[in-house]
Parts: sequence; C-alpha cells; structure tokens
Amino acid sequence: MIIGIAASPGYAAERVFVLKQTELVIPREKIAADLVEQEQQKLREALAQVKEEIAVTREDVRQRLGEHECAIFDSHLMILEDPTLVQEMDNEIIEENKNATWAAHHVFSGHTAFFEQLDDEYLRERAADFKDLRDKIARRMLGIIDSSLDQIKRPVIIVTHDLTPSQTARLNPEWIKGIVTEIGGTTSHSAILARTLQIPAVVGCGKILGDITDDTTLALDGNTGELYLHPDAERITRYHRLQREYVEELANLRDAAHAPALTSDGKRIEVAGNIGTPEDCKSVLANGGDGIGLFRSEFLFLERKQMPSEDEQFEAYAAVAREMAGRPVIIRTMDIGGDKQLPYLQMEPEENPFLGFRAIRLCLAEKEMFLTQLRAILRASTYGNVKVMFPMIAIVEELLEAKALWELAKEQLAARQTPFAEQIETGIMIEVPSAALIADQLAPHVDFFSIGSNDLIQYTFAADRMNQKVGYLYNPGHPAILRLIDKVVQDAHAHGKWVGVCGEMAGDPLYAKELVALGVDELSMTPTSIPKMKQEIKGMVVHSN
Amino acid sequence: MIIGIAASPGYAAERVFVLKQTELVIPREKIAADLVEQEQQKLREALAQVKEEIAVTREDVRQRLGEHECAIFDSHLMILEDPTLVQEMDNEIIEENKNATWAAHHVFSGHTAFFEQLDDEYLRERAADFKDLRDKIARRMLGIIDSSLDQIKRPVIIVTHDLTPSQTARLNPEWIKGIVTEIGGTTSHSAILARTLQIPAVVGCGKILGDITDDTTLALDGNTGELYLHPDAERITRYHRLQREYVEELANLRDAAHAPALTSDGKRIEVAGNIGTPEDCKSVLANGGDGIGLFRSEFLFLERKQMPSEDEQFEAYAAVAREMAGRPVIIRTMDIGGDKQLPYLQMEPEENPFLGFRAIRLCLAEKEMFLTQLRAILRASTYGNVKVMFPMIAIVEELLEAKALWELAKEQLAARQTPFAEQIETGIMIEVPSAALIADQLAPHVDFFSIGSNDLIQYTFAADRMNQKVGYLYNPGHPAILRLIDKVVQDAHAHGKWVGVCGEMAGDPLYAKELVALGVDELSMTPTSIPKMKQEIKGMVVHSN
Repeated sequence: MIIGIAASPGYAAERVFVLKQTELVIPREKIAADLVEQEQQKLREALAQVKEEIAVTREDVRQRLGEHECAIFDSHLMILEDPTLVQEMDNEIIEENKNATWAAHHVFSGHTAFFEQLDDEYLRERAADFKDLRDKIARRMLGIIDSSLDQIKRPVIIVTHDLTPSQTARLNPEWIKGIVTEIGGTTSHSAILARTLQIPAVVGCGKILGDITDDTTLALDGNTGELYLHPDAERITRYHRLQREYVEELANLRDAAHAPALTSDGKRIEVAGNIGTPEDCKSVLANGGDGIGLFRSEFLFLERKQMPSEDEQFEAYAAVAREMAGRPVIIRTMDIGGDKQLPYLQMEPEENPFLGFRAIRLCLAEKEMFLTQLRAILRASTYGNVKVMFPMIAIVEELLEAKALWELAKEQLAARQTPFAEQIETGIMIEVPSAALIADQLAPHVDFFSIGSNDLIQYTFAADRMNQKVGYLYNPGHPAILRLIDKVVQDAHAHGKWVGVCGEMAGDPLYAKELVALGVDELSMTPTSIPKMKQEIKGMVVHSN
Repeated sequence: MIIGIAASPGYAAERVFVLKQTELVIPREKIAADLVEQEQQKLREALAQVKEEIAVTREDVRQRLGEHECAIFDSHLMILEDPTLVQEMDNEIIEENKNATWAAHHVFSGHTAFFEQLDDEYLRERAADFKDLRDKIARRMLGIIDSSLDQIKRPVIIVTHDLTPSQTARLNPEWIKGIVTEIGGTTSHSAILARTLQIPAVVGCGKILGDITDDTTLALDGNTGELYLHPDAERITRYHRLQREYVEELANLRDAAHAPALTSDGKRIEVAGNIGTPEDCKSVLANGGDGIGLFRSEFLFLERKQMPSEDEQFEAYAAVAREMAGRPVIIRTMDIGGDKQLPYLQMEPEENPFLGFRAIRLCLAEKEMFLTQLRAILRASTYGNVKVMFPMIAIVEELLEAKALWELAKEQLAARQTPFAEQIETGIMIEVPSAALIADQLAPHVDFFSIGSNDLIQYTFAADRMNQKVGYLYNPGHPAILRLIDKVVQDAHAHGKWVGVCGEMAGDPLYAKELVALGVDELSMTPTSIPKMKQEIKGMVVHSN
C-alpha cells in the first residue's frame, strides 16, 4: 500500500494507464533582425490555434458537463487575449531577438514564477494555469500533438507525474475512473477539477512511476489517499460497489443543495461561495450557493503594468452581479501589500509582511486608487445585489475613514450623473484580533461582519500560517478563537447586524456546527464544499443565537 | 529655534563647546609572516592600555557618581576580557596577515554590525558599546589622544555629531551643562547616561554644526527638544531658574523612591526594573527598584560560537540573585528565534519572523538547550528570590510542556545532589493574544502573569512595531488592549495569582494609572523610570481591583 494525498473522494479499481510527459525542448536562439516580423506572425498563428483548441475542448466539456464547468477554459482564453501579455512576447522578439517559441515560453514562465511565490494559496494556484498555457503554446509551435488521452476507450486509472488543469478537464469520466499523480496538492486546479468531474484522485504520491506499468491493476480510495497495487478480487468488487453508492449520494446532495439550509430550529443559514474571478460564479451556482460571500478583487490588480481602470473593474464586478441574478455579492476591496508587489505602486519590502502595510492600510494611503475601486463597485450595484467589504480593519478610525471615502465616491458619481443603487450594505472583515475585541464599537458603523478565520487565527496565536514549524498552533477550534467569534456574534446581533465567516473554517464540517451554534448567520466557502455543508446544516440540532 | 529629540530632561543656557570628531584612518596592509608575533604583542599591549584607561575613568566616575553608575565600564571591561574576542583578533592576524590595528577594527566592526541589525532595541544599543571600544583601541594604537573634554573648565553646552557612551560617562556635570548631538535617539546608552548624569540633552538635531561655533550661546529644553540659538537675557535667566528647580525635585524623587509605592487605597504596587545583563542591577537598586521584573537572558546566547554552558549561565543568574539580596528576580527563559540567528542552532530564515519559530516554541523543540538553562536558573535560586518566566506561551499545552521540563530539570539536579530552592514561583509572559483570551485556563498552572505589552499590542493590531508605516496602530491605551489586560487581571485574581506588566507601557506615566486601576500588581520598567513612577503611584486616587 502507498499513501498519497486524498484529492478527490470516491473509489476506483482498474488497470493502469501510464501517461508519459513529453519533455519539451525549447529552442533558444537569437534571430536575425529581418526575421522579426515572421516570428511575430508565427506567434500570432500559434496563439490563434491554441485558442481554437481550447474552444473545442470547452465545447466538448460544456456538452458533457454543462456551462458551469467551463470556467477554466474561459479564464485561459482571457489570459491569451490579454493585450499586455501579447505585447510582452512581442517585445521579447523585437528587442531581444528571441525566436517566437522562446519568447512565449519566457513570458509565460515569468508569470508562472510570479504566482508560484505568492502567499495566497488561491492565487498561487493560478501558476498552474500559466504553466499549462505555456506548454500548450510550446507544443503547438513545436508540432507535438498530445492526443493519447483522447484515445483511451477502456476503464483505466491514469498514473502520471502531474496533470495540467486542461488535461484534467479533457478527461472523460466514462473511461477515466481514477487519477494518481506523483506531485500536487488538494487545492490545485487539477484536484478541484477532478472533484468536479467526480473522478477519484490521489495526488502527491512521490516517485511511483518506476513501480507501475500499463499492466498494473490499482485500487484507490480518494477519501483516505490509500493506493493498493495488485488488489485482490474482494477489494475490487467492494471498491466498485462503494463508488456506485458514493455517486448516488453525491447526486442527491447536489440536487438538495439548491434549497435553502435551515437548522432544526428553523434558522436559515446562508451558504455562499468564495470566488476569485467572475468565471467562478458558475461553480457557485451549480453547487447551490446562496450568493457570493467573498469576491476577492485582487486578481484585477496583480500581474499588470498599470492600475486597472474604473471601467475595467466595473465590468468585472457587474459581470458577477449580473450572473448572480439578485443573490448577494460581497465584493472585498483589494487586499494587497507586503509580499505582493505591484509595479505601479511604490512598495518597500517588509520584515514581517503579514504584520505590514496592506489591504485597508494601503488603500487609505492610496486614496485615488481606492476611490477608483469604490466607484467601480458602486456602478456595478445597479446590476444586482452588491455589498462592499473592507479588509484588515483594526480600529474604528480606519472604518470611519473608509466609509467617508465610500461617501465621497458616491458624490463623485452623482456629480457625473452615473447611477448606483440607493441601498448598499457595507461591512468589514473581522480578521485582526483588535477588531474582534471592539466588535461592539464597530457594529454601529456597519451592516455586517465577515470573520476571516484564516488571518484571525494566525494573528491570535502569533503564528504565520505558512510556517510549518508553528503549524501546531493553527487550531480553529481553540477556545481563544471560539471566544472571539462568540463576542463578535453577540455584539453584532445586539446591534441588529448579521455575521458571516469566510475563512477555511467556514467550509469545514468539523467546525460548522459550532459556528452555527454560536449564532453565525452566513458561511462562505469554496463552491464545491457548498452541497455537503448544506446537508450538514439541515441535519443540525442546535439552539442557535 | 531648532527642534530635536528630547533625550534628557532639564534646562541649560550657556556658551557652546564644539567637540570635533577625529577621523580615524585605519592602516590596512598585509604584514610579513615573521611580524605576526610582534603584531599580536602590539594588540595585547593596546588592549591592556585601553583596559587601564577604562579602569581610571571608572574610578573617577565612581568617586563622582557612585558605584551604581559604573555598569557601563564593567560591561566594557567584560567585553575586552572575552577570550573568544581576543581569539578572533588573533586569527585575523595569524590567518589573514592583517596588522593589529586593522584586525581589531575589523573584529569590533563585525560585532557592531551584528548588534545594529537586531530588532530588539535594547540589544541593538549594544552596538554603540562595540563601536566605542573599537575606536578606543584604534586611537590607542594610532597614538591619538582625545583629551579635549577633560580640559573644559567653564560652563558649556557640548555640541557634536555624536557622543560615545564612554565620552558621555566622562563628562563632568560641574562644567557640562547640556548636550546637543546631530544624530542619536532616546534609548541610546549615551542618552541613558546623560539622564543618569542629570545633564539636559537634545539629540538627533540633524546637520547643525555648520551654524554653530564656540562663540554661539545656546538655550536648550531637554523636556521638549527645543534649541534656541542666541537666546535673549530673559530666557537665559528663566532656564537657569527652571534647571535649579528641576534638580531639586529630582533629588527628592530619588530619595523617595526607596520607599514602597502605595496607592491612596493602600495597595502596594511593586515597581521593578527590566535588565539585560547582571551589571544593570546597580541602576535598579540606585533608582529604588523593588526587584527585577524582567531579566532578559538573551545576552548569554547571542554573539557566540557555542551554546553557553550551564555553569556560565548559573554564574550570571546567581550574580543577579545575590546583588538583589532577597528582592524578587524574574528570569525570562531565552526569547530568541526568527531574525536572531544563533550559529550553534540550525535556524532557517522566516517570511514573518515575528510570527515564527521563537522563544518557547524553539525551546520546546531544543530540549537539551532549554533544560540546561532551567538547571542554571534552579541552581541560582539558592542565592536569592528567583522566579522563572516562559515567553510567548500561546496555548495551555505549551505551558504544561515547559513545566514538565522544569520538573525534569529539578530531578536532574536532585540526582546530582545539587541544591535549589524549594519554592520557586513560575510564571508566563502574556504577549500572544490567545494567552490573554484563555488567561482563566492558564491561571491555575502559574504563580503569576507578566503582560508583555509591546508584543501583545503588535499582535492584537497585526502591526509590526518596527514598521513605521503601520505605526499609527501601535496604541497601548486602545480599548482592545485595555480589555485584554482587564481580562488577564480578573482571571489571575480569581485564581489568587498576581499580574505584572513589563512592556514599555509599564514605564509610561500616561498608562500607569489605568494599569493600576485595572488591578495590575507589579510594573517593571527601565530602571531610570522607577523614581518618577513611584511618585505617580503615590499620588494616585484609585479604587484598585
């Protein structure tokens, strides 16, 4: 038996299909000046072909899985259509005389590396998208066709070093019964897609390809991460039965998720989704989410040369508001600073970026940038049920200042005769311990609180959540945390305000009952966790506050 | 008028004496192999002469100011007698063929740079000591005699770029009525000495030497940092009167400080000193301190090649216990990690060192190192009233593990038939928000709490206290902090345990009344702040808890 990381639940027991990774050798040679235009042309053709290829896969996935599973392809297409990115590749060809293959590979590698070094796990996973596109473009330019996956016409478990998100999306669950990879983690796009496709997966198994061939039979348990080489007949039969039962349960769960989640005492708990780009709305809706509890606006600001314009931001916010069709959409103003450098802002490196100049602290200093974002959010408010939320509020004064700028943004729009909704709820993240400790003083000035449990836990224990050596202190169920949450809920309810939780804790069934019992009104999580959570809540016997 | 940093209170109005800094040019040449021994000899002679020079100054200061003001000279002598340091200089001569002047300068510069980059303000100030000694040795070797200060025989205000601690110590308050420097801050050794010598001082004035000559008359206010060039007769008379009144008040204050500090409702508040080396005890006693509220043990671990031995640690702890003659001495176990690298421990750089693997977190992993320190503290307990305190406790489990090791250290000593006191109080720092939030759960397992306000504030607001950009959040009087302190005191008293405060907040009269009103039993601070604080407390009308 081998133990890997359980990445997608379910059971499989089949023959193996070893997917070999083609080693891509990128030609790196300087081109003559008179070939520059020809190389640019080559680049444009390759990009167009890759876009066509993605569009075809998208249509195939749409027919098999529905529109809501196409988000990844939309986001890949958006990347390829980004004019700054094309400009960067052009510059490599024109100014550095690189050949087109090299130029594209270099630019996409740079963006991959940028995302890989970020602290935010969600954003870090975007690295895989850039890597995926990089290799797609390179394969297209080198004329390497990777069609082995499409030719599988028997039930198999795929075993490979790593799967790209688009490889995973193309997997046909009719034949691909399981996925095993040597590297990877549970939050990678590939793992998320495997869960969506309901293909059981075990990732991060270490060097196993040496022991496994196409003749090996394998049994895998995607709930525990267990892999069995050459399983006996009893295990094979059992795993097939368990998988049938699991698929049935899942279908029921997802069907049921479209109804509201009421606890035994009749309180409705809003179960919402956390999203990072407008494309993620599809998954929230497919999973029965009651709204967007956290729309991280960072994606608009990272990885660009200039500040995003008001119009550009408005488009993104309005797209989400429209798509969610009247369901609540909480847009968090930008949470950037410290370790995330923006080339268009003067930002100094900091000794302790998690205790540094970021989020609202930065926004209150960069007033024009902040006002631009606030105006874009206000304009989007006429397209749906938009709420605004300020991150990292530590003291009342910061909140009052942010609200004064919010009012100023309204005046600016009124002066331009640009419409915005009359009633827009404003709220704050409770993620700094001081904010929880003075929730009674903050409550009169907000419509809602949303507890950012990840940061709140990290600061309360003074333990960097990215630092493994102090990982033992990261305990969402510790009384210090539950007491703070209790106080926040009591103070909010005393002022007639509602409270959500939007950290990882909110999506974990282990803590959900406690949160609901403490009186939390809304839980916002990774969209795919919604159906299970709704089921949990419906089964809860609690006397909630 | 020029505004500088008020570094030592009082008033002066006198003619200026401009102290010029001799630029030291260090000869940097490789020496022939046969001259190595000669250079080593030269080094030894210079060191002996510098020691003699310091001893002479020490005796002079002792006669003028008393034994308790000689700590700085003792610590300089201790540095010069450190065999590893001499070994380092020898190595530079033998292995790198540097001449003695260069070798000494290089080694002392290295240690200066080491201390300058530390986060701990107290330790960072030790850089000035190494720099001072470095230049003393160089001047001795180069035959430069710096006697201008001794020749002053008229009332003057010294104006200079910067003063070394030993230059400051040699100043004769009979003639030196004020100090003005271009650089420096309030916590430098020179500023501390100026306060001890009761010479009014304004530091960090920026480039002023261009505008000032020996003919300038200057008036300075060491309480506000104000400097007046060419003051009128009225101001001169007024400043002389204000200074007389101030000196009188100070003498009364220090006399009164040797009595206990009782509030109006008869509660005794222990007013203790924070120290970093055994030499600092003298200043605590001279200022009427009731004990040592915080003995930082880090000085034993930093700047060395190997772990300090049990005996070496024992000597330091026993020296403090003996000197304090029965008064309480709280020894904090080592608070090192993250940004402070110890060459004899494998320590990785961290993204957020303030949220990292340090203090008790490190000690619980480095059990042998921790046990060695605990045994040394236990052994010192027979020499006075020693208490032990664990830093950075965040959860009950850490405290129980630390206490288990404390018991194990006792067993180890018992097995060696080494004596230790039967009753030793054990306590913890409350500096992580989670510890304050579960003070009721921690209280049964301790004899006392000591609130480390600096860290508690930094973590509660999620704001690095060394990062100026988020400095606006560092507010000891904020309700979030006072509420935490209130909870800690209530929980401790409910279990019959006492509570101290040992951060900067404890020494600030602005917050002292609030802390006493909240029921805090002990305040520990920079020794020179003790007399003023005792006076504050005696004047307090509070109904303390």
